[in-house]
Amino acid sequence: MSSSTVKVFAPATIANLSVGYDVLGLALHQPGDEVILRKNKTGKVTISKISGDEGKLPYDPTKNTVSTVIIDYLKQRNLDFGVDIELNKKMPFGSGLGSSSASAVAGLVAINALADMPWEKKLLLPLAMEGERVACGIAHADNVAPSLLGGVTLIRSYHPLEVIKLPFPEHLHLGLVYPHVNIPTSQARRILPQKVTLKDASVQWGNLGGLVAGFCLKDVELIGNSMNDILIEPVRSLLIPYFDALKNIALHQGALNFGISGSGPTMFILTNDERTSSTIADQIQRYLKERNVNSNTYLSKINPEGALVLS
Amino acid sequence: MSSSTVKVFAPATIANLSVGYDVLGLALHQPGDEVILRKNKTGKVTISKISGDEGKLPYDPTKNTVSTVIIDYLKQRNLDFGVDIELNKKMPFGSGLGSSSASAVAGLVAINALADMPWEKKLLLPLAMEGERVACGIAHADNVAPSLLGGVTLIRSYHPLEVIKLPFPEHLHLGLVYPHVNIPTSQARRILPQKVTLKDASVQWGNLGGLVAGFCLKDVELIGNSMNDILIEPVRSLLIPYFDALKNIALHQGALNFGISGSGPTMFILTNDERTSSTIADQIQRYLKERNVNSNTYLSKINPEGALVLS
Repeated sequence: MSSSTVKVFAPATIANLSVGYDVLGLALHQPGDEVILRKNKTGKVTISKISGDEGKLPYDPTKNTVSTVIIDYLKQRNLDFGVDIELNKKMPFGSGLGSSSASAVAGLVAINALADMPWEKKLLLPLAMEGERVACGIAHADNVAPSLLGGVTLIRSYHPLEVIKLPFPEHLHLGLVYPHVNIPTSQARRILPQKVTLKDASVQWGNLGGLVAGFCLKDVELIGNSMNDILIEPVRSLLIPYFDALKNIALHQGALNFGISGSGPTMFILTNDERTSSTIADQIQRYLKERNVNSNTYLSKINPEGALVLS
Repeated sequence: MSSSTVKVFAPATIANLSVGYDVLGLALHQPGDEVILRKNKTGKVTISKISGDEGKLPYDPTKNTVSTVIIDYLKQRNLDFGVDIELNKKMPFGSGLGSSSASAVAGLVAINALADMPWEKKLLLPLAMEGERVACGIAHADNVAPSLLGGVTLIRSYHPLEVIKLPFPEHLHLGLVYPHVNIPTSQARRILPQKVTLKDASVQWGNLGGLVAGFCLKDVELIGNSMNDILIEPVRSLLIPYFDALKNIALHQGALNFGISGSGPTMFILTNDERTSSTIADQIQRYLKERNVNSNTYLSKINPEGALVLS
């Protein structure tokens, strides 16, 4: 495939899934980012339009994740064409939904589609991780892997990089509530404990093992029971207003479980069907509104494919 | 089923499986313990014969794991008959193969078979864990669960107790080498780090997730790659003579991986077939012998059933 214009969607993602800190993540159908690339012969990479970012993202191609990954890709593959980038952010920043990852992945999948011999998706992963380093200072993969590859992903190892796509029960459904409070990823990382007791770590190993088995065996009860994070959630939830009350609402209304998406403040509601996700998300949004916290909600099944060339 | 005599075999087990400290384990076909119970109407529990223990185990029924679990079972079920116990230990003590667990499980499965309405196997697990407390001071389940239930088991949670049986590739094969050095479980526990860094814990989470996924998806390469313990093995292996050299031998001869069974000193060799297990186990035994360390070797596939009533 080699055309002169391409449009790509890359989805938002839920990293960690409560007990899989830095190793688990899943892709959503929405929200997400859209990137349009127009090929040119100048050899230059430019950004002509950014929408949905409230004017916060830089137009300088050396400073925006969406363009730095494209520049790296062209360099690594010795390609001499240039592109102009249009980035339509259709998701909030700093929300814990992997915003910068979605931009990096969308940019990479788009430039790859413009190349004469596109790479297999998996080969784009290290480049997308480098994009994360530009955005967050650390080359994590727990958002870029699911955004790129889709489904539920496990980073089995970073050195060497090995990502496993896990099976999952197809009917699983997610409600998301993003309260409009600002928690920079760096702060959400800083408050984490540097060390954990071996005993607590092994409790988490049991739950992580249960969660992975639950996905593989498509056992929703096991998935729900296993999302029981004793290490990260108790600390990070302190930064999210009314977290415990909101979790109570979700669990009492029949959610399989409830947790923090990535470093927050977005919270996810895991259920067996859209109706339950929707009811709970609405109720949580109302609860927050009554306490003067505005929020966005999203509903989505797990996206099995990840980033997609739209046209 | 209700007869007056019963003979039960309960298998040795490999706990931890390198990266699943306190949560993973698997059952072997051999070695293991054999218990013969003879029902009587005195209401008393006695031990008349113990073999294979080199005279080390107590005949006092309040002090031997095999009898304490039987006494607990009779009490909990309000049964008024008694039994005389014959315990044939067909596996070494303090070897890291779950010797006390096998005795407790064999005793429980045997007394359960003598009851008018036997319990489902899973209900015996808490009683078997109490047997572990008598033997080791801690009510762990990582040996008793696989010995009782068979296969590969994951202790998803201790509170509440939830054990998951994982699928596994049926052809997987294990070679075991038990070097005749004495490492009490208590010492093997004492040298463990009390705390681990969050970073190391998350590396282990990735590997544990990979191992569980490898079993569920029957992916032997993933299983082998994931048994990469950065927390426990580096410390415990110091207590095992020539561990690094032996691991090198195993990996160079085509083992999927090599690790410490439970708290050691038994080492396991994971392979795709008996021939490879056998070749490596022999080579390791020779290597140790040349350095004046005697050892036993065992060969086994994974035992899918666990403890079994033989007659």
